[in-house]
Amino acid sequence: MPKLVLIRHGQSSWNLENRFTGWWDVDLTELGVREAREAGELMAARGLDFDLCFTSLQTRAIKTLNIALEAMGRLWLPIEKDWRLNERHYGGLTGLNKKEMMAKVGEEQVHIWRRSFDIPPPAMEPDSAFDLAHDRRYADIDVPRTESLKDTIARVLPYWEERIAPALRKGERVLISAHGNSLRALVKHLSNIPDDEITGLEIPTGQPIVYELNDALAAVDRYYLKDR
Amino acid sequence: MPKLVLIRHGQSSWNLENRFTGWWDVDLTELGVREAREAGELMAARGLDFDLCFTSLQTRAIKTLNIALEAMGRLWLPIEKDWRLNERHYGGLTGLNKKEMMAKVGEEQVHIWRRSFDIPPPAMEPDSAFDLAHDRRYADIDVPRTESLKDTIARVLPYWEERIAPALRKGERVLISAHGNSLRALVKHLSNIPDDEITGLEIPTGQPIVYELNDALAAVDRYYLKDR
Repeated sequence: MPKLVLIRHGQSSWNLENRFTGWWDVDLTELGVREAREAGELMAARGLDFDLCFTSLQTRAIKTLNIALEAMGRLWLPIEKDWRLNERHYGGLTGLNKKEMMAKVGEEQVHIWRRSFDIPPPAMEPDSAFDLAHDRRYADIDVPRTESLKDTIARVLPYWEERIAPALRKGERVLISAHGNSLRALVKHLSNIPDDEITGLEIPTGQPIVYELNDALAAVDRYYLKDR
Repeated sequence: MPKLVLIRHGQSSWNLENRFTGWWDVDLTELGVREAREAGELMAARGLDFDLCFTSLQTRAIKTLNIALEAMGRLWLPIEKDWRLNERHYGGLTGLNKKEMMAKVGEEQVHIWRRSFDIPPPAMEPDSAFDLAHDRRYADIDVPRTESLKDTIARVLPYWEERIAPALRKGERVLISAHGNSLRALVKHLSNIPDDEITGLEIPTGQPIVYELNDALAAVDRYYLKDR
């Protein structure tokens, strides 16, 4: 039986508008809600079940999890929420439409910022309308001003080691609802994907990704649930 | 600032049908969903905020909490779910329409079973369609076969002492989403209500009940948020 399933949140309003979202807390679209429900229905139909769930502090991932769990009759499962599963912080790009950005600084620069492993976008301005440094939910941490994918990995993996891996080692079946880049961090780690390849790995919204793990928590197999 | 708010789940499908529900896991009605959302909107409008939430393992209480938190922009708050906040187990009455019961055994007997402090209803039959003894969510406990209100209190209060009171003593602001009788247990304890009075105390669905507590966690005041 698979022990670990990853799911990227369903479509958000800013996925739809093609804006850099990062830590900004946008909601799911109607399609995103449907994707979440269908993900739950698919997991239930395939007999997947879980003991423990993890998600970020962001509405779109939490709602995706809640909707999927409800569809599975598993709303009662324990859920741990942590900022370390948040999306990559897109710094000064947050809120910008990707087309506008391309027109402004050129497609190549946008591509570099989005896809570089260790080059972060410009830092968020302190007076940005999208600054969450004083949001109550982040009162206990220093909110990043920008992150490269490498920076994102550097806070996702300690959380994996500290909270998720021990649960898996105890035999618990784990469901993680998170974001394109926090999931890239996990996939890179579990599937040993090189730095220059991971940035190009697309993780579709609302598709359960199943990991078959051995006792050392190394990946034996990884597949989209819909494909099996 | 108030530290503790209790909320009974919004209207469920069996509240509407006037059936004994107990541990059976019915969903909210549309009205129940609206009640939950309005409760969240009211709490946000009055400036209430929380650090930690507790709920039962039952869908109607979990959904009420999730919907209210979403309306408050607080879906990211930690939530602890525990069976000890479940509704009173109504034993052999589970699933029965209250009017049918009254016609069958008489209004007085129904009233005794519903309102007696320490007389439980007849035990649930092992072959009952409503038996949850083998439900995965209760794998770690002996599911009761019936409960008096006294029995319910006997499992709610240890949970209060073990998990909720310590959080309040640390200064955390707590929201509890639960059920008519698990909340009666808390109200009886906090407001020192005698055995023969607590059974008559009606707790309306979807209405935030605010407790002002002193440092010893004794109630200084208790009121419906809508009334202040």
